[in-house]
This record gives sequence, structure tokens and C-alpha cells, in this order.
Amino acid sequence: MRRKLDGLLFPRSVAVVGASATPGKVGHALFTNVLSFPGPVYAVNPKYRELLGRPCVPSISELPEPVDLAVIVIPAEAVTDALRQCGEKGIKNVVVISAGFKECGVEGAKREQELVRVAEEYDLNVLGPNVLGLISTKVGLNATFAPRGALPGQIAFLSQSGAFCTSVLDWAWKEKLGFSHFVSLGNKAVLNECDFLLAFAEDPETRVIVAYLEGIQDGPRFMAIAREVTREKPIVVLKAGRAEAGARAVSSHTGTMAGSDHAYDAAFRQCGVIRARTVEELFDFAYVLSRQPLPKGRRIGIVTNAGGAGVMAADAAEWEGLTVARLRDETLQALAQKVPEEAAIYNPVDVVGHATLEQYQAALELVLADPGVDLGVALSAPHPILRFVDLARVASQAQQRSGKPVAVSFMAGELGEEAEEILRRAGIPSFFDPARAVRALATLAKYAEIRQRPVFNLQELPGKRERVQKILAEARHKGRVRLGLEAADLLASYGIPFARGGVAKTAEEAKRIAQEINGPVAVKILSPELTHKTEVGGVRLGVPPEEVDRVAWELLTNVKGRFPEAIIDGVYVQEMLPPGREVILGMVRDPTFGPLLMFGLGGIYVEVLRDVAFAVAPLSRAEAEELVELIRGKKLLYGARGQPPVYVSGLVDLIVRVGQFAVENPDILELDLNPILCYPERVVAVDVRLTVAEEGT
Amino acid sequence: MRRKLDGLLFPRSVAVVGASATPGKVGHALFTNVLSFPGPVYAVNPKYRELLGRPCVPSISELPEPVDLAVIVIPAEAVTDALRQCGEKGIKNVVVISAGFKECGVEGAKREQELVRVAEEYDLNVLGPNVLGLISTKVGLNATFAPRGALPGQIAFLSQSGAFCTSVLDWAWKEKLGFSHFVSLGNKAVLNECDFLLAFAEDPETRVIVAYLEGIQDGPRFMAIAREVTREKPIVVLKAGRAEAGARAVSSHTGTMAGSDHAYDAAFRQCGVIRARTVEELFDFAYVLSRQPLPKGRRIGIVTNAGGAGVMAADAAEWEGLTVARLRDETLQALAQKVPEEAAIYNPVDVVGHATLEQYQAALELVLADPGVDLGVALSAPHPILRFVDLARVASQAQQRSGKPVAVSFMAGELGEEAEEILRRAGIPSFFDPARAVRALATLAKYAEIRQRPVFNLQELPGKRERVQKILAEARHKGRVRLGLEAADLLASYGIPFARGGVAKTAEEAKRIAQEINGPVAVKILSPELTHKTEVGGVRLGVPPEEVDRVAWELLTNVKGRFPEAIIDGVYVQEMLPPGREVILGMVRDPTFGPLLMFGLGGIYVEVLRDVAFAVAPLSRAEAEELVELIRGKKLLYGARGQPPVYVSGLVDLIVRVGQFAVENPDILELDLNPILCYPERVVAVDVRLTVAEEGT
Repeated sequence: MRRKLDGLLFPRSVAVVGASATPGKVGHALFTNVLSFPGPVYAVNPKYRELLGRPCVPSISELPEPVDLAVIVIPAEAVTDALRQCGEKGIKNVVVISAGFKECGVEGAKREQELVRVAEEYDLNVLGPNVLGLISTKVGLNATFAPRGALPGQIAFLSQSGAFCTSVLDWAWKEKLGFSHFVSLGNKAVLNECDFLLAFAEDPETRVIVAYLEGIQDGPRFMAIAREVTREKPIVVLKAGRAEAGARAVSSHTGTMAGSDHAYDAAFRQCGVIRARTVEELFDFAYVLSRQPLPKGRRIGIVTNAGGAGVMAADAAEWEGLTVARLRDETLQALAQKVPEEAAIYNPVDVVGHATLEQYQAALELVLADPGVDLGVALSAPHPILRFVDLARVASQAQQRSGKPVAVSFMAGELGEEAEEILRRAGIPSFFDPARAVRALATLAKYAEIRQRPVFNLQELPGKRERVQKILAEARHKGRVRLGLEAADLLASYGIPFARGGVAKTAEEAKRIAQEINGPVAVKILSPELTHKTEVGGVRLGVPPEEVDRVAWELLTNVKGRFPEAIIDGVYVQEMLPPGREVILGMVRDPTFGPLLMFGLGGIYVEVLRDVAFAVAPLSRAEAEELVELIRGKKLLYGARGQPPVYVSGLVDLIVRVGQFAVENPDILELDLNPILCYPERVVAVDVRLTVAEEGT
Repeated sequence: MRRKLDGLLFPRSVAVVGASATPGKVGHALFTNVLSFPGPVYAVNPKYRELLGRPCVPSISELPEPVDLAVIVIPAEAVTDALRQCGEKGIKNVVVISAGFKECGVEGAKREQELVRVAEEYDLNVLGPNVLGLISTKVGLNATFAPRGALPGQIAFLSQSGAFCTSVLDWAWKEKLGFSHFVSLGNKAVLNECDFLLAFAEDPETRVIVAYLEGIQDGPRFMAIAREVTREKPIVVLKAGRAEAGARAVSSHTGTMAGSDHAYDAAFRQCGVIRARTVEELFDFAYVLSRQPLPKGRRIGIVTNAGGAGVMAADAAEWEGLTVARLRDETLQALAQKVPEEAAIYNPVDVVGHATLEQYQAALELVLADPGVDLGVALSAPHPILRFVDLARVASQAQQRSGKPVAVSFMAGELGEEAEEILRRAGIPSFFDPARAVRALATLAKYAEIRQRPVFNLQELPGKRERVQKILAEARHKGRVRLGLEAADLLASYGIPFARGGVAKTAEEAKRIAQEINGPVAVKILSPELTHKTEVGGVRLGVPPEEVDRVAWELLTNVKGRFPEAIIDGVYVQEMLPPGREVILGMVRDPTFGPLLMFGLGGIYVEVLRDVAFAVAPLSRAEAEELVELIRGKKLLYGARGQPPVYVSGLVDLIVRVGQFAVENPDILELDLNPILCYPERVVAVDVRLTVAEEGT
């Protein structure tokens, strides 16, 4: 069965619309690259009948066949028309190289809208516009205008920046790094990263998907796809543009803390995407993931003939989150027999400088054979006797025999060059810096854990969406966009535990509510203007039921007297809760991913220590558990300093429910549950502030 | 004037003791390398009369002159004797290549002691034993047995690992990185890193000192020297062995938190040593510091013709602590006139892909000329028109004209190679990864700040050392190695503010102390066994003066009844203090650097959040201020959440005094002042625990 993008990624025939005979022109560079394609290649250009030995027709309609792929490299004004001709001709896959669209002001944006319309009309797969092109090494197609092609390999590469594509191609050529597919995404008018993730997931040539992205077009779709794909294949992303683009207008606590980079970090973490910080990391990770097997755990074995290198590798293991493996007694005994007397047989195993090749090999094989070792690194310095080519063979044999991942650091310059080819054939990553080799291995361990994570399982909980929407509509109708405790009911209707209480407009109502609560209560003024209730003297705590009417009357009168302009909706009468561990859960809307939750311990932990963590909703229980685990002060929840642990399972449930509440009510723009009190046997929200969109959903 | 190590680092004549004619022998490899030395070279070996064209004598005593430098490469057993002969001959500088000393068991250690004795007897400068050798490019000396020499340059390199030396030489050759001196430190029996820091500091050929160290021999001397040297020249250190070598037996709070790596981090920070984490960082930092000028600040200007590269550089600037400079209006206006219309003129300045060389050059020069820009990075992707060699010239001209530091990232492989030579000549660091270029620039900014830091100024405060020592001696005499509140006086005698109070052995004494305090007091049981006073019911708070005798009597009786085995020294009667912000200051003895202070906010901030910072004592006021600044929760001291700021200046004074107390009383092994209460107008320690060495100083 042919899949949606097969014609684009594995075409059997290609036409270049705008191919040129003039060197220096993009249409010439492109056509020259396409010429190496083994299938039929046509040029479309009214100027020629033949071009560089290939047939050339004056227009798309005159092509002898509806080619699998058309590549358009003509002025922007003419692109839409050419696209329509493709549609008419029955050509389904089009790469639009031409620039002059959304990236070029209002005129360009209109042109791009038109392009999208035609693509939809004819159901075309359009890559671009404004791209370098695409390469598929499997079918021998280089449909880019880059000066370099790509070597075959198992890495599928996506880039939002065309310039970065040329950089990577040139650099990869020098490094002999190969690709299955190489795609310049450009303006993503029709096809975007999601479409290619799906296609690469099914492509047997691709073992790793690597992307340079400056933004994601459809956050929820990206997450849904990536969650699935990363169970089968690793996705490594360099997301550029971490720096915040200035302040936004925010009214919630969460809003002042959450940036779009938090959303990307959370989304990538939740769906198992590995985030690279730099270009170096991007390709180090891609290479090792494409060529080495996955380890069973994080325990590293280190073999060296130079002490310093072993120490550096052990240091790197620690800060990359690997464990320096403890070798079992059998391994230690065998090592002691095989290596020189002065050798250090405890991991890191240092066979010392005068060890022979056989001794080095024995040590490496013994260490990798130890069931307590999950991955290995082989280190060496230049040596008067041992040759790096021999060490390279030893490393690749040991890797194959053990089936465990191996990286090497032969800390050398030219002396190590000959060995590089051997290591490359064996797929063993090799770096001068031992720390870099260890970091690459750590990525394998990370991805192995990503594959093993629980399947994303969304709990569907009963939530009274209609009721919430009705109340929000009423508030909006009254011009109320900020709600306080009067919104407690909304949350309760989603099963989110909230301190018992109710709104009272009069002293008598207050008394009735207090009688129902049947215990001391807190009486809090309700006013959209007076959000800092305590500071304005609008809160009374521990009021006995019999005094509630008096206290409510006093509060209403006093506050009214002090703030005659303020709208006062009454008081909120709430059960008094004993002191407990305070946490905060907030939500803002991220433009890319939607509801972004923030969790933290309240007060100074949030404001001063910034000890908070983020997750995109909806989220599974496992993801909510992870969210709680991510804060530095989590021990305070699990029972530190003689305190009993709080009811974490209830907290996790609350987080999942707030996530669902946020997803189902997108007109709630921001939300703070602060504080939520956590006790050993229950958790309960005590206060809420939320902001409603002025327009309904 | 000749300085101490001139004969070693700039010899005029050299003898190789143990030079050999047999290829494959270390004595042959070494002598072959030494042959390129332009001055007189002699071999010492009874087997030959001449060796590879140079005169050879049978023994050191028969050398025709007392050479400046003897290099010894003979079996370990014969080394001490050869050293003695050098001494007799008047040879002052000796490199001992031979291994078989401290690194080889008990026998070797004895041999090394003997070597040190002879070196002291004849006042010899001995490098080694167990070294690769040394290189001085200025005088053309390669006295190593490495297969590669070193190119001339301005980096002086020290390494504790000989294998790492061979690695660096081979790699540096490929990278064309040059050195002024290259020294393998080996066992550091006589000369160690400190001696070379001093020598390199005065060497006009050396601009940067770089070291790979696994340990430091004399921490306080290292700090004293490095504090001075880093004011003139940068020192970059890769200190390997970060991982902790198992748990130590500790009894203090601070002891459970402080590791030797904290001591290294603190010491390096305090004396301005830049710490590299990896080999890559070590040489990236060394290169940029040796070739680029220092910036005035942290504001970076970014010029690119490829958008993605600019975004990556801006991201890297943020996480490296640089600021993306805000260009002034004049610059923006000039840019607008010089670059293509589509260009982005706000920093990062993206001249876009079709900019000409002139446009790129104009942008780079304008950005660097902006007084709000301190350093610049020039970025490019492979380009159909612009050649990297031209961009390299443009970058180096712009650097020279502006006098500001510049790094480049031409994101290319082979296409960029030709440009590398131009950049190398200009000393401009060049990396594929823009993040790496920015990181190198950030190091320049960091070092510029190190040079500008306040001069180390040690406040000498009056401290009653004799009194403290007398009390400690008494405690030791009684077999008491752990002291509690009874040690409050010791601290007070160094001017460390302590809550008023005193030891009472009887109820009457307790009453008398309380009357002096004249207000409510705390009464606390004093027992070396019962360190958790509160848990055993041994603390009564807020006791009115008139009830103190009764309470003291009760405490003594009750505790005695419950813990009949415990030694009870009486009670401590202490003024009651109002609640305040609690901090902890502790001290442990680091084996390398001595007294290591730990500072943090008390309680969960230390135990759960591990929000603590370290400094080596003695420390200046400026360093104590920095220590307070280093904790994440520092805002809680400077007045967060509506609280007034605490008396930070008093806290700083207390820290300085505790540092002096620890330095002057080295038999105090561990110390916890916990809590110290901080108020707006004063700080005061409330409790203390300290451990005394069983042997006095």
C-alpha cells in the first residue's frame, strides 16, 4: 500500500518546473542535482526543448506523464498557477522552492493563502514554499539546490531553516554522516513537521528522526503523533528560540512564571522527544541512536589505558546521570588474571599504559560481559605500542559480541584518524573528549527509558462542562472576567476537591451556610476588585457558627466603608481547615500547546526559589505523577523531617482533573488554585482565581 | 635577573641521562626529540662515545659543563644516585622521566622519599618523577618522549597525567594550537603546580595558563598564588575526579553536605580560576583567552546571514549569562541604510541570505562600533555567492578595527576549511556550532570580571586564640570531643555574636544567670550524649526569671531519670529571642584546602532543597558577601514577600569571623552554628555544635 507521502519521499519520476541552463541560477543548481536521479527526469521551461540531456517541455500540462513529484523553482507570482496545473495534470506531490510568500510581508502572505487554497482544492502534498528542497537517499533523489548532497544513512532530518540545511549538508559530508531523508520545511504552508514524523515513523530506512524547529504549528497534533512515534523511533529536536520575546500581560501567578519554553520543555518531555540544546548535541545524539543498540539500564563500564581519561569519563557519567557500574566478583577475578599487575581492576578499569592489545581486549570484553554493565566506553591515549586501528577493531568486536552499546574516546588527533573509518563502519561513536562519548551513551539510556514508559492513558472523568460553560457565560455577560472563590463550584463539578463553603449575599445566608458546615468557618469578602482579601481586612478565620452572621455583617459593612467604589458580591463562608502542606497548581494557555499547568509548593517556594514544574494538559496519571516528582522540594510531600507523607495519590488525581477541566473549558484563560492544602489522608483546594475570555468558545 | 625556574623552562644546554641508540626505547625517543634543541646537547650513557651525532659521556660527572638542564631516563633504582651526581656537578634543574616511584607501591614510595631528600640536599629543581617531560617552544626544546612536538603559542599547559599530555600534543598538532610551555607534572615530588603558576605568571610568552589536575598538593599555597596570578593572567583548570570517593565519617550537618568537589569549586571561584568541565571547554577557553582582547561587559552583538544561526546564538547567549545587546538608534538607522530591505536590524542582525559581502561587512562593523556592544559573533551558512574566506577577512578586520573580541561560526564543513587559516592567523575562534562560539566569548567576559574583582583583603580581627585553645585542651583532657552550647563562649571570644547565656550546674546558678539576662529565658539541658535536646524533653522556652530555678531543677531531674547513663553537665540558660530568619553556617576540614565553610538558610532549605554554598576560609568580606549571594533563596534575606531585609552586613561580618576562628583553631574539625537568627538590625547565633581533634595542634 502506498502511504500519503510515498510519492513525495520515494518518487519514481520527477519534473523540475523552472529548470535552467544558466549556471548560478537556482533552477540550474537544482536541476543539476536532480539529474543523478535514476528514474525519469523532465524539465519544464518554455525556453528549451531539451536541457542537460533531458527532455524539456514548455508547460506542466505537456509533461508526457503525471510525474510522482514536481519541483517548482519559478518566480513567486507564477507558483499558484503552476500548482493548479499540477493538480489538473494529476501530479500529487509538489516541492515549492520559490521564496516570496509569508516571509515577505502582506503581499507574500496573501500569495501563500492562495497557494494553500489550490493545494486543498486538488488535495496536493505541498512541501514549502521557501525551501532548500528535499533529499531521499534510498531512491537517489537530491531535489535541493545545495552544493552538497547527502550520503545514505538512517537519520531522517527535518529543518525549518533552509540555511541550516546547507550547513548540515556540508558538515555531514565532511563527517561522513548519512541520511535517509533530508527535508527543508520552509513556510510549512501545507505539510508540516507532523506529516513527516508520521511518514518517517513508517519508513524502514529511518532509525532516528532529527529536527531543527523554530516553532511547532499544531501543538496538540504534534504531541499526539510524537507520543506514538517515540515508542518506536527516537525523535531528537533542536528547538531554537528559547529566549523569551518580552513580557506578556498576565494576571495570574502562574502567568508570571510560565514561558513558552517551559511549554516546549514540558511537551517534549511528556511525549518522549529528546531535546538537544546545541547542534553538536543534535548530531551526537542522532548518530549514536542510529547506530548503537539500546542498553538495559544506566550502568556504565569504563576501560582505559590512561588513568586521566578514565577519571574524566567517570566524572561525565555522574553528571549525565549514569552509574559507574560495580563489577561482580567473577569479573574482578578474571580481570586480575588478564591485565598487568599495576592495573586498576575496579571500574574504571585502567589496564595502564604498557598493557598489550590482548590485555586491553580481554579487559573490555570482560567488562562488557558483566551482567551489571549496560553500556561501555573504551578509552585510550596515543601509545608507543598499541595502534588505534587495532583498538578500534577490538572495540567494534567487543560491541558486537556483547550486543551492548559502546562508544570510544581515543584521545588523539592525526594518530587516530585511520581508526575513524573502522569505527564508522561499526557505527561506534568516537570523540576526542571522553565526556562527549559518555554523553552520547547517556542519550541511549535515556531513550531506552522513554520506550519503556507507560502507554499514554487518558482517564476520562465525569465533568459537568455544560454547567461550567453556563456559569462562565453569565459571568461574561455581567462583564466579569476575573472570578474568585465564587468559582469554587465550577471546580467541584469536575470532582476537584474544594473546601466546603458557599456564597452568601447577606448575614442570614452566611449563618445558614455556616450551620450546614457545622463547625468554625472562615468568612472571606467576595469582590472582583479586592483580590488580596487578607490585605484589605476582608478575611476572618475560625469564626464559630453562632457568630457568623455578626462577622459577615461587619465584614460587609467595614469593607464597603473603606472601599466605597468596589463591587462587593457578598462573603464566602468556608470550612476552617487545619494547617497542612501548601501547594499551588496553576494553568495558562500556551499559544502552541494550549493548557500549560504549573505545579509547585506554595509561597516562597514558588516566588523566591522558583521551584516549579510544568506539564501540558490533558495529562495521564503517570504524567501527573512525574510533574510532582519534578520539583526540587518534593521530599516535603513524601514525608521529610519527621512529617508524615501527604496524600500524593489524591494530589495526582486533582492534577489530572484540573487538566481535564482546562482542556474542556478553553475559555478559561488562566487559573490559580492557591493554596491547595495537602494532608496525609486528603488534599483540598482552598482558594481559586481564574480569568475568563471575553468571548465564549 | 634569572628566576628560580628559568634554567628549567629556558635552558641554554641540555644533557639526556640514559639517552639510547635503540629505536623503541624511551631514551631514544626522548633524545631524538631533544636533538632539535639549538644549544649544546649531551648524551650520558656508558655504552657510547657519541650518539646521533652528539657527544656522549659515560657519567654525569664527566659532562664538559654543568648543563642548565638534565633529563633522566634510566631505571628507577639508579635515579637517586644520578640526581646526587647532578647536585655534585652543579646541575640545578632535572627532569626525571623514569617511572617506578610513588605510583608503584611501598618500595616506590620509599624511593621517592629518597629522591626528595637528595633534591633538598642539593636544592635541585626536580620535575617528576614519572613524567612525559617538558617542552619550551621559545628555546626550541622538546624534552619529552611523545611522538609529537608542540607548535609555538601563548598557552602554558600543565598536566598531572602523562597520557593526557600525549593526547593533547597529538590533537593540538591537528588543530594547529600552539603552546609556550608544555609540562607533564607526574608525581610532583618536588615541583608542583604552584611553582609553575608562579613561573608562567612572569613569562612574557604566556598569556593563558591551562592545567589538567587530579589533585592539588598544597591548597592554601595554591589559593594564595592563584589569587595573585589571575589578576594578570587567566588560569583555566580541568579538575578531574569530581565524583565522591565514598562516604566519610562525619558528625556535623555540614559534614554530610560538603564534598571535596565543593571545596575545589569554592577555592577556584574565590581565587578567580576558571573551571572547565570537559577537555573541549578547556581548550576552547584557553584559545579564546590567549588570542582575543577582553570585553568591557557582557553585551553581545550577533550578525548573521542565516536566521537560524542567529536564533541559536541568542539562545546560547542567554544560558551563558550574556545579554543580547540593545543597539542604539544611530546604529539601527545606519544599519537600515546599509543592509537589504528584508534584513532584521534589531540584534540579532540578520542581513539575510542574499546580502553582499559589503552589506555583511557594514553590518558587522556597525554592530561592533556600537558602544552598547562589548563582544560580537559573526555567523554564516554556506552561500552561493559569499565565500567563507572573504567573510573570514571581514571578521578579522572588524575585530581589529573595533578592538572588541569576536568569534565566528561559519556553519560549514569542507567549504569552510580554507577560511580557517585566515581566522587562525587573526586569532579568531571558529566553531561549527554557534553555541560553542558564544560559550567561548562568555569566558572572556567572565575573565574580564575576574580581573576587576576587589583585591583580596583579609580583615585581621582580634581573636582570643589562647583562651580557645585552653578550653579545647581541657575538653580533650576530659575526653570530650563534641561540644555544644558550652562552646558559645569560644565563638563570642572571636566577636561572633551569640545569644546571651551561660552554663549552670545547679538551679541556683541558673537563676543567677537568668537574673543577669533580665527577661524570659530558654533553659536547655547540656549533655554530650543528648544532642537532640528538644526530642528528649531537654528544652524549656520562654521561662520567666522567677521560675528558672524550678524549671532548671525539673529538667535536670527528669532527664537524669529518663537517661540515667547520660553525662549531664548542667543546663544552659539563654536569652529568649524573637522569631527571625534562620540561617546555618558550618565548617568542615577539607584535606586539600582546610576550613571549608557552608552557608545556607536553615531547616528544609538545607536538608530538602540543598540550597547551600561553600567557601574556603580565610575569606575576605567580599568573598563572604559572595557566599551569601550564592544561595538560591537569598531573596529571603534581602526582604522578600513584604518582610524587611535582614542585617546582611552583620551576617557577612559573622561569616568572616567564623572563617578566622576556623583558621586559627585547626583542631576544631567540624562546626555547626545552627540556627543563626537574622533580624533587620542584628544577627545572633543561638546554638553550636563542634567537634575537636583528639590530638591538639
